[in-house]
Amino acid sequence: MAPSSSPTLRTTSEADEEKYANVKWEELGFALTPTDYMYVAKCRQGESFSQGKILPYGDISISPCSPILNYGQGLFEGLKAYRTEDDRVMIFRPDQNALRMQAGAERLCMTSPSLELFVDAVKQTVLANKKWVPPPGKGTLYIRPLLIGSGDTLGVAPAPENTFLIYASPVGDYHKVSSGLDLKVDHKHHRAHSGGTGGVKSCTNYSPVVKSLFEAKSSGFSDILFLDAATSRNIEELSACNIFIVKGNIVSTPPTSGTILPGVTRKSISELARDIGYQVQERDVSVDELLEAEEVFCTGTAVVVTAVETVTFHDKKVKYRTGEAALSRKLRSMLTNIQMGIVEDKKGWMVEIDRCQGW
Amino acid sequence: MAPSSSPTLRTTSEADEEKYANVKWEELGFALTPTDYMYVAKCRQGESFSQGKILPYGDISISPCSPILNYGQGLFEGLKAYRTEDDRVMIFRPDQNALRMQAGAERLCMTSPSLELFVDAVKQTVLANKKWVPPPGKGTLYIRPLLIGSGDTLGVAPAPENTFLIYASPVGDYHKVSSGLDLKVDHKHHRAHSGGTGGVKSCTNYSPVVKSLFEAKSSGFSDILFLDAATSRNIEELSACNIFIVKGNIVSTPPTSGTILPGVTRKSISELARDIGYQVQERDVSVDELLEAEEVFCTGTAVVVTAVETVTFHDKKVKYRTGEAALSRKLRSMLTNIQMGIVEDKKGWMVEIDRCQGW
Repeated sequence: MAPSSSPTLRTTSEADEEKYANVKWEELGFALTPTDYMYVAKCRQGESFSQGKILPYGDISISPCSPILNYGQGLFEGLKAYRTEDDRVMIFRPDQNALRMQAGAERLCMTSPSLELFVDAVKQTVLANKKWVPPPGKGTLYIRPLLIGSGDTLGVAPAPENTFLIYASPVGDYHKVSSGLDLKVDHKHHRAHSGGTGGVKSCTNYSPVVKSLFEAKSSGFSDILFLDAATSRNIEELSACNIFIVKGNIVSTPPTSGTILPGVTRKSISELARDIGYQVQERDVSVDELLEAEEVFCTGTAVVVTAVETVTFHDKKVKYRTGEAALSRKLRSMLTNIQMGIVEDKKGWMVEIDRCQGW
Repeated sequence: MAPSSSPTLRTTSEADEEKYANVKWEELGFALTPTDYMYVAKCRQGESFSQGKILPYGDISISPCSPILNYGQGLFEGLKAYRTEDDRVMIFRPDQNALRMQAGAERLCMTSPSLELFVDAVKQTVLANKKWVPPPGKGTLYIRPLLIGSGDTLGVAPAPENTFLIYASPVGDYHKVSSGLDLKVDHKHHRAHSGGTGGVKSCTNYSPVVKSLFEAKSSGFSDILFLDAATSRNIEELSACNIFIVKGNIVSTPPTSGTILPGVTRKSISELARDIGYQVQERDVSVDELLEAEEVFCTGTAVVVTAVETVTFHDKKVKYRTGEAALSRKLRSMLTNIQMGIVEDKKGWMVEIDRCQGW
C-alpha cells in the first residue's frame, strides 16, 4: 500500500524543506492541533483486522445507528512520539497499548487489531505526520488510537463492524501548573465499580467524570481524585491518570483489580522507582494514608509524572513535598531522559519510527 | 423551514399512493430498517438549540476527536409512533423523554434541546417518515433521539458542540418469545453504581453490559438481570429495561435512586396498576423476594410489558405465572390499547402527529 499523498514518497530535499509543520511550538497545550494524516482500518464481526489506510485527517462518516454513537461501544489509547536531539523519532512502549486495547476489546465484545498491526499502524501514523513531532524539548506528538463500534445495531449487541482509527496532535503540558496539582477528593461520585469497565480504557469511563472534573476546576482545583465505589475509603485514580503516594522508602499505588486503569506510565514508573531502591507496593491505599503521605504524584501518558501539591478532602487540605527534593521530579527526569534519548534505553521501551511494513 | 424533499409537500393523491413503504411488516423484529429521513440540529457550547433540519437518512460526518467517539459523551432516548385503526399516527409521552434527556445532559455537562424543541423534532421526524409507521397490529415506528458530544476535545472536558439527531425504524417485537423471558441473574458484573450514570440514559451504561448479555444469550437465556453494586443483594434492571415483581396485591419495583433508569413505561405501568387496585411500591427488592414472587415482568419502550417465565440465580431456577392469568398480560393490554387508540386516552399520554411547527 502506498498512498499517493504519502510524505515518505517525497524526495529528500522536499522533506528537508518541510521538516517541521507550521506550529508555534512554544504555545502548545493539551488541545487538538490537527495533523495531516490519520490511519483507518475496518473489520467485520467475526473477521480479523487487516492492513488499514493512511488517509488525510478529517471528519469520518459513521452510521447514526452505530454502537459507538448509541451505546458507547468504544476504546481509546494514548501514547506519544518523541523527537530526540539527534533527530530520531521514537515511540514509547506501543506494545503495552496494543495489549491494553486487546483486553478492552475482550471486555466490550469487540474485535481488536493484533499487537503487530497495532504497532505498525501507530508507526505509520507517526511517520505520515513526522513534521508534526515537535522539536526536542518543545513537546511531543500525542497519538490517539480509537477502536469504535461501527455498522448498525438498533438493539444492545456486539458491533457488526469495528473501526480502528489513529489520529495525532502535537501537545505540550497537560496541566499548566508551577509546582504541583491541587486535587479535590470526590466523595459523591465514583469512577468505576467492581465488575464494570474501570480496568479497561473504555470511552464509558470518561464522560461520567466530566461533571466532577468541571466542578472541581471551577472551584480552582486542578483535577479530581475518586474513591472506590464499594467502601469510599480507598483512593482509585484521577479523572484520567493514576496516583502514587510516598512515605519514607515506600511508594504505594492502588492495585489494578478491575476498577483502576493499568497505566503504562504507572507500570514504567513503578519499575524506575524500584531501580533506585524504593519499595513499590500495589495495594489498597486509604484516604487516611493519602492525607498522611509525604509526597503524592500522578502518572499518565498525558501528564507524564506530575507532582501533587495539595489534596482537599471535605474541609481538610494537606500540602505535600514538591520541587527539586521530590521523588516525582527524579522519576519524571528518569522517564523523560529515556523517552527523549538523553540516556540509553536499557529496558527496550523505545521503538524507533522507520519505514514501516506496507509502505 | 420547508426542505424541498419534504413528504408533506406532496399532493394528497401522491401521498395516498405511497401510504406505506415497501416493508414486509410481518417479518419485522427489533433491527434497523432505515427510513427516509432523520432530524439533525447542532448547538455550540454555551448556546441553545434552535430549529434543526430534516435531512435524508444516512451516515453522519463527525470529528475523530469528538467527545462521543473518545469519551462516550452521549445520551439516547427511545419512543414509538403508533398507527391507529382510523389511521392517525400517535406518539407516547414524548415530554417524558425530553425531560429525561435534559436530566442526562445536566449529568454529562451537555446542552439539551428544550422540551418544546425535542417534541417538535420528534413529530417532524415521524411525519417525514410517516409511511414507515407500520399498519395497526403489525408493529410500531421506533424513534431514537441521540444527543452526542461533537466538535474537538483532545482532553476530557465538556463538548464544544452538541448534536441532537433523531432517526427512526419500523420494529416488531424486541424479544421473540412465546410465554415469557428466561432471565439470568448476573452475580459478577454490575450495571451501575451510586454517583455514576445509571439513573440517566447515557450511552455509557450500555456497552459495559454487552458481554454479560451476550454470554447469557449464548447459554439460552433471553436477558440478564443486574444486582446493585453496593450490596449485590437487590435487583436493579435488565440490560435495557426495568423490572417488576408481583405478590398478592402488591407490585414492587426498584426505586429510581440513581442507579435505575426512570423508565417512561415503568412510570406508566405503575400508574395503570394502581388504577386497577394494585398497591405499587418503589423500594429495594432483594433477590430473595424476586425468587419468592408469583409473577415477574419487565417494562420498557422496546419490550413494552413482557412477562418473565423463569429466573436463574446461581443453580436455582424459579418459574413464574405467565399467560392469560398474568397481571403483566392485563397491563400490557391496557397500555397498548391506549397507545393504539383502541380505548380513550384519559391520561393525555398520546400526542397526535400533525403538521409541525416550522413546516
